[in-house]
Amino acid sequence: MYNLYYSPGTASMVVHLTLLEGALPHALELVDVDAGQQRSAEYLALNPRGLVPTLVVDGAPHNEAAAMTMLLAERHPELGLAPAPGSMQRPDYLQWMFYLANSLQPFFRHWFYATEYVADAPDTVKAVARAGIEACWSYLEAHLTTHGPYMLGERFSVVDLYVLMLMRWSRNMPRPATDWPHLARFASLMKARPSWRRLCEIEGLTEWA
Amino acid sequence: MYNLYYSPGTASMVVHLTLLEGALPHALELVDVDAGQQRSAEYLALNPRGLVPTLVVDGAPHNEAAAMTMLLAERHPELGLAPAPGSMQRPDYLQWMFYLANSLQPFFRHWFYATEYVADAPDTVKAVARAGIEACWSYLEAHLTTHGPYMLGERFSVVDLYVLMLMRWSRNMPRPATDWPHLARFASLMKARPSWRRLCEIEGLTEWA
Repeated sequence: MYNLYYSPGTASMVVHLTLLEGALPHALELVDVDAGQQRSAEYLALNPRGLVPTLVVDGAPHNEAAAMTMLLAERHPELGLAPAPGSMQRPDYLQWMFYLANSLQPFFRHWFYATEYVADAPDTVKAVARAGIEACWSYLEAHLTTHGPYMLGERFSVVDLYVLMLMRWSRNMPRPATDWPHLARFASLMKARPSWRRLCEIEGLTEWA
Repeated sequence: MYNLYYSPGTASMVVHLTLLEGALPHALELVDVDAGQQRSAEYLALNPRGLVPTLVVDGAPHNEAAAMTMLLAERHPELGLAPAPGSMQRPDYLQWMFYLANSLQPFFRHWFYATEYVADAPDTVKAVARAGIEACWSYLEAHLTTHGPYMLGERFSVVDLYVLMLMRWSRNMPRPATDWPHLARFASLMKARPSWRRLCEIEGLTEWA
């Protein structure tokens, strides 16, 4: 049994999607971010930096969404949510997980929280974030064009869930990820999965659903 | 046999250190970054984004330093460079690898390449990067104080190599990581390892050696 502390539409999505894809028994705990619940003493005891999500596994709390996603995939190898260690696709799997965490995702923090980064030049921060994000979409587009339809080719994996979450985050940007044709096709493929439809219902996501 | 395309003192360090720790057979290929060799057609064929490092494994090039480090650890489980899947420390291992890649390392890009990010306000970008990096050192300090001496407690792992590399990057900042006492002790412990001394020799690193 897993306990996921989540907030709709945030980085908890990739973990939630993984739980749904694997039909893994779990309980959801809503963290009311607008009310500042992530800074409550109770939540900080689980997640000292006050970030969403937290995944409780065997009574122990863990954070970092990409790490939790990898953890779930490797705790349930029979589900085939990720290439096994030693397999041909393993290096690409690790590479993409870190690419998304290290190169793409941080730009979204600048895009959404520009004034927290540089209070006196938020527009410049946003312009830089936008350029960075769009360069990443172009990179992913080139990859999917030659190596798709999924990030690891013919096989679906949790990397796809991670890409899908980040794509959704761009939906209101000047150029959303779906402006790139292979990324748009990828999004359609992913949105047709029962896990996505169920996530939207549970999290109450109506935009980009 | 591994081939590591590296540049002294850059993100290739964590992969190089892992190869040295494991005494894994490898050949080094110097990428002359000052001469722009990372943008040569030859190098771009290995690493389309022109970043260092690249690790060639069984003839296939891979990138993302943290991913390569994890890959090496799991290809050689007998070396115990990382907790095995299913082990007690595995969740913490994954969490720290992603924390470093996602939360700490991106700030260094802003610190070192501030004008590339926001040309008209580089000092503000640097101030933000500094604050972010120092908050991370405080977080790691608190962790090592109660859970040290290594990042995973009593056992050394590749997470420590990753932290050490990032600490070195801060050596000329207003507050280098070694201003935090447990991080300073950690650095001493790590610098006493043969892998670090050998790395400094091979890469010609004299500062912070």
